[in-house]
Amino acid sequence: MKRSQLYIKTRKDAPGDEQAKNAQLLIRAGFIHKEMAGVYTYLPLGLRTLNKIVQIIREEMNAIGGQEMQLSTLQQQDSWVASGRWSDDVMDVWFRTQLANGSTLGLAPTHEEPLTAIMKNFVSSYHDLPFYTYQFQTKFRNELRSKSGLMRGREFLMKDLYSFSKNKEEHDEFYEQCADAYMKVFDRLGLGGITYRTFASGGSFSKYSDEFQTLSPVGEDTIYVHEGKGIAINQEVYNDEVLADLGITKEELVEKTAVEVGNIFTLGTKYSDALGLEYTDEKGEKTSVFMGSYGIGPSRVMGLIAEHFADEKGLVWPLNVSPYHIYLVTIGDVADRAEQLIADLEAAGVEVLYDDRDERPGAKFADAELMGIPYRVVLSERTLAEEQVELTERRSGNTEMVSQSSIVSNITSKIS
Amino acid sequence: MKRSQLYIKTRKDAPGDEQAKNAQLLIRAGFIHKEMAGVYTYLPLGLRTLNKIVQIIREEMNAIGGQEMQLSTLQQQDSWVASGRWSDDVMDVWFRTQLANGSTLGLAPTHEEPLTAIMKNFVSSYHDLPFYTYQFQTKFRNELRSKSGLMRGREFLMKDLYSFSKNKEEHDEFYEQCADAYMKVFDRLGLGGITYRTFASGGSFSKYSDEFQTLSPVGEDTIYVHEGKGIAINQEVYNDEVLADLGITKEELVEKTAVEVGNIFTLGTKYSDALGLEYTDEKGEKTSVFMGSYGIGPSRVMGLIAEHFADEKGLVWPLNVSPYHIYLVTIGDVADRAEQLIADLEAAGVEVLYDDRDERPGAKFADAELMGIPYRVVLSERTLAEEQVELTERRSGNTEMVSQSSIVSNITSKIS
Repeated sequence: MKRSQLYIKTRKDAPGDEQAKNAQLLIRAGFIHKEMAGVYTYLPLGLRTLNKIVQIIREEMNAIGGQEMQLSTLQQQDSWVASGRWSDDVMDVWFRTQLANGSTLGLAPTHEEPLTAIMKNFVSSYHDLPFYTYQFQTKFRNELRSKSGLMRGREFLMKDLYSFSKNKEEHDEFYEQCADAYMKVFDRLGLGGITYRTFASGGSFSKYSDEFQTLSPVGEDTIYVHEGKGIAINQEVYNDEVLADLGITKEELVEKTAVEVGNIFTLGTKYSDALGLEYTDEKGEKTSVFMGSYGIGPSRVMGLIAEHFADEKGLVWPLNVSPYHIYLVTIGDVADRAEQLIADLEAAGVEVLYDDRDERPGAKFADAELMGIPYRVVLSERTLAEEQVELTERRSGNTEMVSQSSIVSNITSKIS
Repeated sequence: MKRSQLYIKTRKDAPGDEQAKNAQLLIRAGFIHKEMAGVYTYLPLGLRTLNKIVQIIREEMNAIGGQEMQLSTLQQQDSWVASGRWSDDVMDVWFRTQLANGSTLGLAPTHEEPLTAIMKNFVSSYHDLPFYTYQFQTKFRNELRSKSGLMRGREFLMKDLYSFSKNKEEHDEFYEQCADAYMKVFDRLGLGGITYRTFASGGSFSKYSDEFQTLSPVGEDTIYVHEGKGIAINQEVYNDEVLADLGITKEELVEKTAVEVGNIFTLGTKYSDALGLEYTDEKGEKTSVFMGSYGIGPSRVMGLIAEHFADEKGLVWPLNVSPYHIYLVTIGDVADRAEQLIADLEAAGVEVLYDDRDERPGAKFADAELMGIPYRVVLSERTLAEEQVELTERRSGNTEMVSQSSIVSNITSKIS
């Protein structure tokens, strides 16, 4: 991709009304535009980044048997009245709107109710269970304040998977599979080693739920980490009973600041009871379907990654989520050599953002750093005369000179 | 994919309140669920079909230099007030909602205004033009009635591309490129040969706009086709002046019923004037950016394809948009042979829906037909004893016996 086709420009300052560091950086780097507090447009680089996060999650959800579908934003009242969540006293983040005929609709803040209602068309016997279905869908939540950029939006993308099982045992088995899949997702997103499965408060059908918390100074949650066991406890359930349940002591735990990047929850029969989703079991008896929900917010995760890894020069994307692998800058009359290198790199699966603008190299270097592309390649007349190419890692700032003949293999070995 | 994992079931009858044939068929086949009139959930087969349409459009938009991004659904008033379209008297399909603080937002029915406003951050000089950007984004239109299934929704997917050019000449060049790309899109969607570029009414900046109209008895538009020139005229501009402009006579035209599947439109400086999107030209003068818009509704196209090609047995998908290429049915104890064949087919890029349910073959055949998968393969003990496999084309109903050793190459030659 050529910068000249990309139409965005970086900027020195973020809008004055933007308080969140993640959004400030992403706006300055030309990844997003702020429509209003908590509502953002994804410009080309931002959408590429978001889609890379989405695709990693999709692959791991497919790997555990998830079937992708997509529910609607506009919601009738019926199923929400049945569960009690149509009321603002129960769920206070509804955006509502009216059809031309005057009837009131809601904009889906989540999708348990309509999905449970749909499944009444498909579930009748124990032969029909279990199954797992998920979507990437925009959620709308009417937060009174929205000051955290992509990390807590009014309009934001969510991956929500729902499991439909015959009973708690069958549910528990998938729940653990999904917990494992979540750890794989966070590893692939570049958050491995700092993301902990964390005990949090449960509901009527399970004592605990599980959060996935990433250690970060930008976090708002406090968790207690057991490094030996690789687990953590959310402050909200940090008490003697939980410690006893887990067989650990306070002395083994370290208090940390963290960001919630995912959660999985045993819904039990809360929604299937409310909406009448039942099946006939092996004995011929009507039984409520046992459900679970499993969420990751790709846009929230993008905000966290942006803010967590950033340094004083700008964004620093992990390789797997960066919109491009290479930011290519030329110095002097070497456009033909650049085109040839891009062709070779792209043939090897390397994604290149080529800064072909008529700008001084310093401005291009600053953009490469602000945008956080993992590697910068500089082709200059001077080094090419010696058959050398300059390769700089964004994270460390380390520069190496690589022979022109081995630059493609050098880069492909770094990104594979 | 195994049918047993897919959780959907086909049904004999559509819901009584669904009047559109496309939605009736898609609901019966388990592709979509009706949330309310004009609002549908895409179940796994439906989402796969929609995504295939999306991907074809995406590839052709990228090929002409389009940059994908994504705007927001929630919209502040400002830019819409500036253009005059916030008023219900000017645009009568707004869904509106309120922020918790009481201020009124709109759900985007289209995106000219917010995009033009964003571009003020990026356009200043003639060096910044031209560029082309597009999105696949849900649109919300508060239609008083919505009786056409996917063909006219209240919540529906739209691909909308916008061009930003220095002047009309530069605009016209891209406009023609995009018209050519649209014809490629409709060819790839299986609508080639029956889709005509059609003269329709223009606006302040061009005498005509261009619609893309697909001949179909399910259409609501009347067009006049000139088969020799491969063009058509919409009834709304079918008059002596247009005939003179085109140098054709009424006798050369044939009246046809058609469905609008896309349109391209010269916006000129309507929105750039209203919102102050200007650039400094080569002479140092401030000039308004010259814009165009280019729409295709993937969900509308999906509804048309569903309804247009259907026969008395159900859906008939063109190969490129079908959720799977092959519907595989087994008779007798041949599961191992089926698994092997699926592995071979999938390795060759063939997408297989395997009906592994404990159902009689007749029920499986009926589902294969209702779902409209282009080819059905039957593996039975009887034919496998003779090293033969049964292959049936959905569209023609023709069945051939293929030797087991050549079935993979036979199928890959059909789908490539």
